[in-house]
Amino acid sequence: MSTAEDLTAALDAVERNAGSYAADLMDFVRLPSVSTETEHRPDIDAAATWVAARLSRAGFTEVRTIDTPGHPVVVGRLHHDRDLPTVIVYGHYDVQPVEPLELWESGPFEPEIRDGKIYGRGASDDKAGVLIAIQAVEAYTASGGLPPVNLTFLIEGEEEIGSPNLPEFLDQHRELLRADLAISADGGIYGVGTPSVTVGSRGLAAVQIDVRGASSDLHSGMYGGAVANPIMALARILSSLQDAEGRIQVEGFEAGVEPLQPSVRQALAALPDDEEAELAQLGLKSWWGDPEYLPRERRNVRPTLEVNGIGGGFQGNGIKTVLPSRAFAKVSCRLVVGQDPEQVVAALKRHVAKVTPAGVTATVTPLPGSGKAYQMPVDHPALEVAAESMEAVYKRRPFPVWTGGTVPVAEQFQAILGIWCLYFAFGEPDNALHAPNEFFRVDTIRQGTEATVRLLAGLAERRDALAPIS
Amino acid sequence: MSTAEDLTAALDAVERNAGSYAADLMDFVRLPSVSTETEHRPDIDAAATWVAARLSRAGFTEVRTIDTPGHPVVVGRLHHDRDLPTVIVYGHYDVQPVEPLELWESGPFEPEIRDGKIYGRGASDDKAGVLIAIQAVEAYTASGGLPPVNLTFLIEGEEEIGSPNLPEFLDQHRELLRADLAISADGGIYGVGTPSVTVGSRGLAAVQIDVRGASSDLHSGMYGGAVANPIMALARILSSLQDAEGRIQVEGFEAGVEPLQPSVRQALAALPDDEEAELAQLGLKSWWGDPEYLPRERRNVRPTLEVNGIGGGFQGNGIKTVLPSRAFAKVSCRLVVGQDPEQVVAALKRHVAKVTPAGVTATVTPLPGSGKAYQMPVDHPALEVAAESMEAVYKRRPFPVWTGGTVPVAEQFQAILGIWCLYFAFGEPDNALHAPNEFFRVDTIRQGTEATVRLLAGLAERRDALAPIS
Repeated sequence: MSTAEDLTAALDAVERNAGSYAADLMDFVRLPSVSTETEHRPDIDAAATWVAARLSRAGFTEVRTIDTPGHPVVVGRLHHDRDLPTVIVYGHYDVQPVEPLELWESGPFEPEIRDGKIYGRGASDDKAGVLIAIQAVEAYTASGGLPPVNLTFLIEGEEEIGSPNLPEFLDQHRELLRADLAISADGGIYGVGTPSVTVGSRGLAAVQIDVRGASSDLHSGMYGGAVANPIMALARILSSLQDAEGRIQVEGFEAGVEPLQPSVRQALAALPDDEEAELAQLGLKSWWGDPEYLPRERRNVRPTLEVNGIGGGFQGNGIKTVLPSRAFAKVSCRLVVGQDPEQVVAALKRHVAKVTPAGVTATVTPLPGSGKAYQMPVDHPALEVAAESMEAVYKRRPFPVWTGGTVPVAEQFQAILGIWCLYFAFGEPDNALHAPNEFFRVDTIRQGTEATVRLLAGLAERRDALAPIS
Repeated sequence: MSTAEDLTAALDAVERNAGSYAADLMDFVRLPSVSTETEHRPDIDAAATWVAARLSRAGFTEVRTIDTPGHPVVVGRLHHDRDLPTVIVYGHYDVQPVEPLELWESGPFEPEIRDGKIYGRGASDDKAGVLIAIQAVEAYTASGGLPPVNLTFLIEGEEEIGSPNLPEFLDQHRELLRADLAISADGGIYGVGTPSVTVGSRGLAAVQIDVRGASSDLHSGMYGGAVANPIMALARILSSLQDAEGRIQVEGFEAGVEPLQPSVRQALAALPDDEEAELAQLGLKSWWGDPEYLPRERRNVRPTLEVNGIGGGFQGNGIKTVLPSRAFAKVSCRLVVGQDPEQVVAALKRHVAKVTPAGVTATVTPLPGSGKAYQMPVDHPALEVAAESMEAVYKRRPFPVWTGGTVPVAEQFQAILGIWCLYFAFGEPDNALHAPNEFFRVDTIRQGTEATVRLLAGLAERRDALAPIS
């Protein structure tokens, strides 16, 4: 068959198979593969086994579950023609924790379809992404055909804890993973029904700040007013990290950051403006943050600093008049090209040392998950193939966008395997990623699968899209 | 027998009985009567039953466990001579929560004697106080005698949650509780082996501040930098409550507060200075707080504001890059004479409304436990009797002190029953009240019991110490 015939057959297969996609995703979501919590280790293994079996069912000929010092990586290869280029597809089977559990309307691991949406932890991030890519390959193999490129799927189980073992895995399995281009099935599009091609992603640096005062909790009636309060000290430290309008005040934080390029600002400014609807959906009256940049710039191409969690003293119901001995906060920063995670952590340490109030000690400890930002050349032909594939499905020309999140693997494919990583994924901004009531739209599974089928055909046609980094 | 002979017989009884005091207290501590947590309700009832039985065993002739809308109040009366004055003894059988449990060296409800100290939650606050008073009465009844005054014990179970039902209880049982003076067996002395007589106690006003941002937790990579962070907003609100040196910045907070009287400052300045040792014991290098006042002034007679607890976002191990939708803090203030708890709460509400950053909403909700400060006339004869009773045991003249803590009942005896409340209790500042590893010294039980035996004899001799408030 010609490539065009293969594509037509595969698209027909998507048509035939689409009825089973929702059930497939719900099966996957039922596995509570939370990577941050060690008690979920058996569920992690079960999810890896599930992915391996699913790859085999889709026609992959070599499927291996490879142990790492952490969670296993599933590698599935379907290399059927040594003259064809090879494409790696990256995704992850692990998911975020579910807390606060009481805000979920249905069990996070008891997926439920409501109003055309499959609700459950990981439904969008990244179990739909993994399944869409597998289903696209399966569309080619379903009728006895073969995909138009050799494929290597690399599905890991530690993305939500920062992929600590992935760099070494890539380094140790260079031969197994030899390829011409990577595709990340983890990511998303600009809006519901509004496709986009992702040009870059931000990096991450995160720390925990621990503040200690007296050696034990004290009675506030006995020592209040005379012993420094670690919660109050922590509040002062946190307040010093940003000004009231959100400008980061940490010296050295932005070292290496270039001013935003006009082309980037123009591309972002040209995005369709559905911000009012988005605000309403978030229950907000207005955006917030550094007034020198548009909200979309702050969300995508500017560095950020957020407090992700805080705790100290008595948190139960009612009152306990304690003067606590400790408090902590978790702070994470999204980084842009030019920022080095280690240097950002060092800047945070220097800042905290400088502003820690009298009477307490503060320590700053790096948290896992750090990674550099990643950016493809905006004129890379793979981006054009991706745009055409999406346009064929969505009937709209995709916008170039920069994702605000962090997918450390993109920068690692670049740095370790010497290949570009094309984001090609279908999460939507309202999917409640990392939050209660995460969901993925049933219709989007099919749209994503069709677009991925087209992408593989398009890449096979456009060999210059598959050139490794020179 | 004469009063002097009664006293001698009672002191002999203390000598005989002292060997059983530690076991008695440990029995009481084994009951986990935590009043803040509803799951401990059966333990609350068990503790009330225990107290009632203990009163009966000590010779009280009328013992009743009286229900309230909350926890029962145990009232034990030993009224044997209508010509004698009546003294109420107040204490409480409920205890604080035990968290953080991991910091206890032995189970909070598995009392253990180490180095002459009985460790356990409530060992000092207030189970030792209750038992010392019962044992003092028992010393009189042990040899077939009777105490030199009529006694009404009122032991409640809601002190650690602010005695919400006590005012109504006092009001409804005026006849049962008719008396000439109250004694609070809840309180303490200045230092280990350093007795003091407590002239007053501070009041309390407490609130919870809840800050809300977006309607659900968000992905910090997607919304960070563009949506207000409730933890950061809360940090700014808390930082605004005090300046960096601890001066409270809440407008109207000190309305009604008189400047410290020179006699009070002198009395406090004359206290023996063991502050270096105290700092070392607390693991601190220096005191902290408003430089216009001495630490002991800030701890005893000045109003305070402390953050007792804070929570928001992800508090587990590792990292979750969430932009949380909510955060809260619990703030409590110790009040001095002239401050009204309701007005202080109103001032906090106005302040928070004024300083809440853009992009979030903040609500301020009063917490239970509010009460006014209490102060006896410094020349009240009951204070002199108390001082003499302590001096006979400790061989040191007690100092007048103001306790920094709050015992709402003192002000309630004054306001509702029209009688003064004399603090007469033996907690020591190192007892880790409200904290892990709370303890009470075995030797102090006996010292307290002997002093209380002497107090009852002294009050019987000095009828002007028993005059109701005119």
